[in-house]
Amino acid sequence: MKNFVATFLLCFTICTLAYAQTQPYLNLETATKIADAAQEKAISENWNVVISILDQGGNLILLRRMDGTQIGSIEIAQLKAKTAFEFKRSTKIFEDMIKEGSVHLITMPITAVEGGLPIFKDDVIIGSIGISGVTSAQDGIIAETALRVAGFM
Amino acid sequence: MKNFVATFLLCFTICTLAYAQTQPYLNLETATKIADAAQEKAISENWNVVISILDQGGNLILLRRMDGTQIGSIEIAQLKAKTAFEFKRSTKIFEDMIKEGSVHLITMPITAVEGGLPIFKDDVIIGSIGISGVTSAQDGIIAETALRVAGFM
Amino acid sequence: MKNFVATFLLCFTICTLAYAQTQPYLNLETATKIADAAQEKAISENWNVVISILDQGGNLILLRRMDGTQIGSIEIAQLKAKTAFEFKRSTKIFEDMIKEGSVHLITMPITAVEGGLPIFKDDVIIGSIGISGVTSAQDGIIAETALRVAGFM
Amino acid sequence: MKNFVATFLLCFTICTLAYAQTQPYLNLETATKIADAAQEKAISENWNVVISILDQGGNLILLRRMDGTQIGSIEIAQLKAKTAFEFKRSTKIFEDMIKEGSVHLITMPITAVEGGLPIFKDDVIIGSIGISGVTSAQDGIIAETALRVAGFM
Repeated sequence: MKNFVATFLLCFTICTLAYAQTQPYLNLETATKIADAAQEKAISENWNVVISILDQGGNLILLRRMDGTQIGSIEIAQLKAKTAFEFKRSTKIFEDMIKEGSVHLITMPITAVEGGLPIFKDDVIIGSIGISGVTSAQDGIIAETALRVAGFM
Repeated sequence: MKNFVATFLLCFTICTLAYAQTQPYLNLETATKIADAAQEKAISENWNVVISILDQGGNLILLRRMDGTQIGSIEIAQLKAKTAFEFKRSTKIFEDMIKEGSVHLITMPITAVEGGLPIFKDDVIIGSIGISGVTSAQDGIIAETALRVAGFM
Repeated sequence: MKNFVATFLLCFTICTLAYAQTQPYLNLETATKIADAAQEKAISENWNVVISILDQGGNLILLRRMDGTQIGSIEIAQLKAKTAFEFKRSTKIFEDMIKEGSVHLITMPITAVEGGLPIFKDDVIIGSIGISGVTSAQDGIIAETALRVAGFM
Repeated sequence: MKNFVATFLLCFTICTLAYAQTQPYLNLETATKIADAAQEKAISENWNVVISILDQGGNLILLRRMDGTQIGSIEIAQLKAKTAFEFKRSTKIFEDMIKEGSVHLITMPITAVEGGLPIFKDDVIIGSIGISGVTSAQDGIIAETALRVAGFM
């Protein structure tokens, strides 16, 4: 009888979850943790960057521009995040493909420069991060560090 | 008894965690049902319209243009859906406010014409529908009928 | 007899003129058939894509985004269809030309990635299809299969 | 002795001029304090908003979207801040002017809805804040509270 009740409860839980047709998302608290980790890494390296984070719908949830960062990075950080979100992959992948000869990809509306990474949870995309301000390799280091520290890599 | 309590706690935890970090969304199957209901209503009235549906992130999931519909409605239907999604309300609310004197709202990037409705599930916005092609009052009737038939109103 | 010949000639002239002033076009019913064929192929391969179809004027007539498809494909599918329509050729032709050295073509407003095909009827262009979501080679397979199944290739 | 006095006067003048060629600006630390004050007020009222802050050049320095805020507020909050910055006045002033009959102001590239305020230091504009998410009157209360708490009003 006990086993039956336990099994019933477990099934009920799974059914409820399935029926609910829900999926994970990114809230401001988690986005803030990711941005804090990015900013801490940038400060430790004495780098100035814009940190941009999009949510599960590709909409901006947080942006910070560190003092002294070039103004153009406000847009670039968001564009890198947009590309990483829209194509569920690091912007570095597109950068490498174009460098290695797939020049035709330039005709797509993408920003193919390292520094943008998708954020996954349970294999579902819940957002992305875009960093711009220093070299694109350094931007990429900040993005990766941020996701690792926040537990997303 | 211990097993039972343990299982109950496990289920409770799974539910709580899942609930806290997930939210409902709109899939193509449901969007298709909504669009079918809209199209059926339009055919029954002999009206030609564009049907546009956005998902929980405000991104286009389905668009249909019925034969003979004015080309401008391709964009208008999407703009109505965008406004309904972005502001979680019927575009008719903005239309009425401006008509009744709140003329300053025209300075906002909205499309304040009836025919756009948000789609809610469990009080969470999971998308929106935008209809354009006939009079805006008729567009609104199609949008409402579609959501009612599909069980969202 | 003279009257009969005169009447016949008049009718023939009217018919010819009328025929000369019409051209084939794509309606929603045919676009739906093409999209259904594309979706069926995608499902059979377990691929997720956006299906986009333009009509004889190059205007969007139908769009479907299958669950889980990357958001960026909403725009890319439409851009591939636009390029295929505007230049009456497969987007793969431009991709190959650029890969083979005609890099200057990047300065044109085209999307030179496989997955876009024009739709012809009686040697007249009546629309185009754009597929995006998996690899561009796989996108191309879906586009071709859809047109073949629907009787346009 | 005359030479010494002359040299001293020259140095003093140069220093003063140099000093006169700087102006106050807004850094991320101060912008964060203002945003924290805005967010605290919003939480205390159970309101969900987007907080947007521009610097002395009118460029975005910080943006936060609280959970559940309508997506359209991402753009509106930035537009309100832009208008407050570009015209050195509260967006409510434009809203009131249009409501009172100056409808022609709609033809200007402004967002005439309460919730945007310029930030001054020593009578020099160093940035602006834009709030969007609840009613425009409530948005305005958050903006004012934020600047008062942070010592700018």
